[in-house]
Amino acid sequence: MTIAATQDGPLGIICGGGAIPPAVAAAVMRRGRRVMLFALRGFVDAQAVAAYPHCWIAVGQFGRFRRLARAEGCRDLVLVGGLVRPSIRQVRLDWATLVAMPRIIRAFRGGDDHLLTGIGRILEADGFRVLGAHEVAPDITAPSGPLGRHRPDAEAMSDIARGFEMLAAMSPFDVGQAAVIGKGRVLAVEAAEGTDAMLRRVAALREAGRIGLPRGVGVVVKAPKQRQDRRFDLPSIGPDTVLHAAHAGLAGVAVVAGGTIVAEPQRLVEAADSNGLFVFGRADGEAN
Amino acid sequence: MTIAATQDGPLGIICGGGAIPPAVAAAVMRRGRRVMLFALRGFVDAQAVAAYPHCWIAVGQFGRFRRLARAEGCRDLVLVGGLVRPSIRQVRLDWATLVAMPRIIRAFRGGDDHLLTGIGRILEADGFRVLGAHEVAPDITAPSGPLGRHRPDAEAMSDIARGFEMLAAMSPFDVGQAAVIGKGRVLAVEAAEGTDAMLRRVAALREAGRIGLPRGVGVVVKAPKQRQDRRFDLPSIGPDTVLHAAHAGLAGVAVVAGGTIVAEPQRLVEAADSNGLFVFGRADGEAN
Repeated sequence: MTIAATQDGPLGIICGGGAIPPAVAAAVMRRGRRVMLFALRGFVDAQAVAAYPHCWIAVGQFGRFRRLARAEGCRDLVLVGGLVRPSIRQVRLDWATLVAMPRIIRAFRGGDDHLLTGIGRILEADGFRVLGAHEVAPDITAPSGPLGRHRPDAEAMSDIARGFEMLAAMSPFDVGQAAVIGKGRVLAVEAAEGTDAMLRRVAALREAGRIGLPRGVGVVVKAPKQRQDRRFDLPSIGPDTVLHAAHAGLAGVAVVAGGTIVAEPQRLVEAADSNGLFVFGRADGEAN
Repeated sequence: MTIAATQDGPLGIICGGGAIPPAVAAAVMRRGRRVMLFALRGFVDAQAVAAYPHCWIAVGQFGRFRRLARAEGCRDLVLVGGLVRPSIRQVRLDWATLVAMPRIIRAFRGGDDHLLTGIGRILEADGFRVLGAHEVAPDITAPSGPLGRHRPDAEAMSDIARGFEMLAAMSPFDVGQAAVIGKGRVLAVEAAEGTDAMLRRVAALREAGRIGLPRGVGVVVKAPKQRQDRRFDLPSIGPDTVLHAAHAGLAGVAVVAGGTIVAEPQRLVEAADSNGLFVFGRADGEAN
């Protein structure tokens, strides 16, 4: 579903870290809608949001956020960007958050998407409408087919199919947004560490001679968890994903077309082309 | 199946790294059978095998191994110990290995258990009988129930059940002998990196404030892959597993009773008791 670009009030973008929040902001503005960024202190680099209307909130300042959002006339919200779990010292509490605390703690106990779904529910119970980045800015998701110059060969396609199949099998356990497969062998599975850390691990294993495959063999696959609400935790890739994959000696990166945010697509394609990697969007529901 | 202890000829033990090969040797000798250790150069610490009849072979010296084994009258073999994939420089080739090479290369291309199954098949084609460590030394596998003073509480039992269930779901993909679960959330999944490296990762994530669970919550579960031949790649735990789990802030370690080798059980129990961790053997096939 694509949301009409002409609704009243700016779109509120609650921003975690990384390049995706500004990319979503730019894409929404290109579609003619105003934005207001709520940058989470400690997660967001000031430079990343400097070009957009923004204000700062701390994790836990639900009351402050609510006041600011209402003052700005934001009824529609998206939640995007990296949310590395805050340490206790980064958290600032206010009264509204204390009231919501039991729900927030319950949300924190599950996986990351439980956390985000939980926060989403709290926002919706408060009268906000929570949208997905793929709804407000569909042009920032991966298209179907290759992005850039290189294409997966038959062996890579087979690794991609196996990877997506395994991620689907793990999905009921609320884990496995990404994995690395080489010649049918599962080299790494992502859980709490994140995709970049998983790729650094593969690079280190390869350096230690523990992969046993030549460079240029193997793929990293990323997929949304099947049961997750895509409004809250769409997987994303960016130039760094490609560079980490190149460093890990992989042939390329495969994602679900329309179900993955591509941050900085131009830099991503440059990184892929110059390192000889493919970036491939597999049509959702495509046969294994 | 338990193998009679009085067969002719010593049991040949092809040894990878770690504490398990000497533990298997000791357990076999306690049952009254002679042993001959074939220590893989580059993987085995000389001290570990010093107390047992042994000779050294290099990876790739299949011909040398065959001559030595026949000279010693070893018809029965077990393959145990860590087999971190060798870098090319550690490999010494001989003619018999060159002949077997196409099969070895095919074996290397699959997962670790393909590698070991492949080597096992080559040995069997050559007239050896390949046995599992659990067959020649059943007393070195984990018993059912708690090992040591501590027991899993209801929350840990629920994490254990979820962990085994997830490992079973991943098993068709030849991956996932171990995972870390905390309050139902999957924190880490093992692939090519090994259990200790996975536990170090959990420790680092916890230190970075990215686990979001108090210390003493979470379990590491280990299980044989369902379709693997248990003769070749039984999972194992030892004192180091417990210490890594303690460092990662976990409540304990759970394994499949009778399907997991326990290296140095006394030191393992001491490590568990003094760090407040449980070590729990779940009866194979126990309901989730």
